[in-house]
Amino acid sequence: MVKDLDMAKQLTIWAPNGESGVIRIIDQRQLPHSLEFLDLRTAEEAESAIRDMAVRGAGLIGATAAYGMYLAANTAPAKGFMEAMNQAAENLKKTRPTAVNLAWAVDRQLKVLAHANADNRVQISFQEANRIAEEDAEACRRIGEFGLDLIRQIHKQKKEGPVEVLTHCNAGRLAFVEHGTATAPIYAAADQGIPVHVWVEETRPRNQGAALTAWELGQRGIAHDVIVDNAGGHVMQKGWVDLVLVGSDRTTSTGDVANKIGTYKTALAARDNSIPFYVALPSSSIDWSMKDGLKEIPIEERDPKEVSHVQGILDGKPASVRIIPEESSARNFGFDITPSRLVTGLITEKGICGANEKDLRRLFPQ
Amino acid sequence: MVKDLDMAKQLTIWAPNGESGVIRIIDQRQLPHSLEFLDLRTAEEAESAIRDMAVRGAGLIGATAAYGMYLAANTAPAKGFMEAMNQAAENLKKTRPTAVNLAWAVDRQLKVLAHANADNRVQISFQEANRIAEEDAEACRRIGEFGLDLIRQIHKQKKEGPVEVLTHCNAGRLAFVEHGTATAPIYAAADQGIPVHVWVEETRPRNQGAALTAWELGQRGIAHDVIVDNAGGHVMQKGWVDLVLVGSDRTTSTGDVANKIGTYKTALAARDNSIPFYVALPSSSIDWSMKDGLKEIPIEERDPKEVSHVQGILDGKPASVRIIPEESSARNFGFDITPSRLVTGLITEKGICGANEKDLRRLFPQ
Repeated sequence: MVKDLDMAKQLTIWAPNGESGVIRIIDQRQLPHSLEFLDLRTAEEAESAIRDMAVRGAGLIGATAAYGMYLAANTAPAKGFMEAMNQAAENLKKTRPTAVNLAWAVDRQLKVLAHANADNRVQISFQEANRIAEEDAEACRRIGEFGLDLIRQIHKQKKEGPVEVLTHCNAGRLAFVEHGTATAPIYAAADQGIPVHVWVEETRPRNQGAALTAWELGQRGIAHDVIVDNAGGHVMQKGWVDLVLVGSDRTTSTGDVANKIGTYKTALAARDNSIPFYVALPSSSIDWSMKDGLKEIPIEERDPKEVSHVQGILDGKPASVRIIPEESSARNFGFDITPSRLVTGLITEKGICGANEKDLRRLFPQ
Repeated sequence: MVKDLDMAKQLTIWAPNGESGVIRIIDQRQLPHSLEFLDLRTAEEAESAIRDMAVRGAGLIGATAAYGMYLAANTAPAKGFMEAMNQAAENLKKTRPTAVNLAWAVDRQLKVLAHANADNRVQISFQEANRIAEEDAEACRRIGEFGLDLIRQIHKQKKEGPVEVLTHCNAGRLAFVEHGTATAPIYAAADQGIPVHVWVEETRPRNQGAALTAWELGQRGIAHDVIVDNAGGHVMQKGWVDLVLVGSDRTTSTGDVANKIGTYKTALAARDNSIPFYVALPSSSIDWSMKDGLKEIPIEERDPKEVSHVQGILDGKPASVRIIPEESSARNFGFDITPSRLVTGLITEKGICGANEKDLRRLFPQ
């Protein structure tokens, strides 16, 4: 169990015994109140983990789906193998249809399996899943290095006190395999001994800031304070924020950013206070087909119960309280669009660039 | 009891049997889950009601303090009457030191009592309390009429659908004696048969939007949806908001507005989407001595437990759940400043004016 705890400090998904048909994940539904692991042995268990949000976040969903394909290969019959794999691929893709990385990871597995022979195809799919997970971790690590430059510059200019970063939602290591995107520069700075303090917007309705970002910052010993989303503007007005760092669920080729609901208001506050607002993202989340985020990116409307009720812990056990009158209705929009004009820059695995098509195409010419 | 329910549909505080030593209030701590009344018989009970937030909101705090002075007069010994009254005044003022209306109402009572004779001073203080309550209600009623003009204009210009109003926190009738400020124009419009739909920002951390504004709109049959504060920008971007109406805890002579935390972010979103942003306030909340809200208005920092925990109802009973890791800390800022440049106009009991000193002094020359 000690080994798992060590792994869980770094990774969100791993194969505890190598290629032995078991994939272990952190059950994120239990955070921050309890660190629990979940073992996946079949593609169906991987599907459930994604659908029921035991894992979430673009990068981690992709990695879990990739390992789900390995589990499918591991349990598929020799006869009708590819039929079984195609079925598993279809089922996995259905779990969260808006997550870009999911379909991409599943299709990568189908492609390598199509050319594999029966003797080593399970091994090949295990290796491909590992590769996808490693690539995700590596992209985040590079994002961390590029973002570190920003933090280092601010640290040099500041006479005293830590570098003050504000973040929204969880674009942390829990949303990816390792490092995270918005958190990667923070972890990189901490590794370099640069003092950082993070303002964590709680991120209603699901409170991923309060629950996940606060938890993972605490695990790494990074100083932080949770604030309500409403307070983000106030701490900026007070001059207590040097840099805003957020993630992205989808970025258009023109630099418009779809991210967790509320990111837009936070970006407006950053702009109004001349605070740099950076979005950290792996290029896999860029949608090259779209040019106008507001018009083109569909915004998921979710169960109003996430608004009318709040999940938390009561007497050591998970509980949910209702906060609106029984007679009132609620609406629950999952994301909003931050127009590129409010984005100071994009931090990608290839470097930092302006939130515009020209700069993006220069970094990613293909 | 039927009579109380009828009263409670209109008023937040009343004397159920005239001048008989009993003042009845709605216990707002139980809303929206249960409508309960509380009887105040002494100045100490009025103090507790204000301190423990059974009543809240600028106007209602003032009225409750005024009635508290009447209760003090009613129970004070004939000998040493004014000493007892001065003591009651001091104690009442201490309950919520930042509420402007509180000290003002208490001082008005002291002033009339100083000139009253022993025979009718209890009656006089009862009448003065009634007058303060009526003036508050009347100011709100007028704010409603002036604000109604705005809503009527929008209604005329719209081809179809209700007038869409977004509000933050509760500047509703529950914050005053009657009508409210931000809600008064909405109620006035509904009385005129103008269809209105309200987007209610829940207003973390204390959720006065979700708990109080949603409840009172529901009581009046006004169509509304509760959204998380984060979603306010999104519904504006979508073109679903015609008008933002909020209240104010303190307004400088230059039009800077201190209001519930998050008002600033909402104002930024309104500005970015060219949506009129109006602040409704009785002139009693204008601080003529201040010119720079950001520099001069002190911002109350409250118990972080309001951020780390969320109050609601569970199995029919009030309950509080923790939403952040036990090891994490939180900060809780009660208000923020919306600079006058983001305010389209101020709706006062004397009319609507620009958020600037010239316009304000024209409306209030004294």
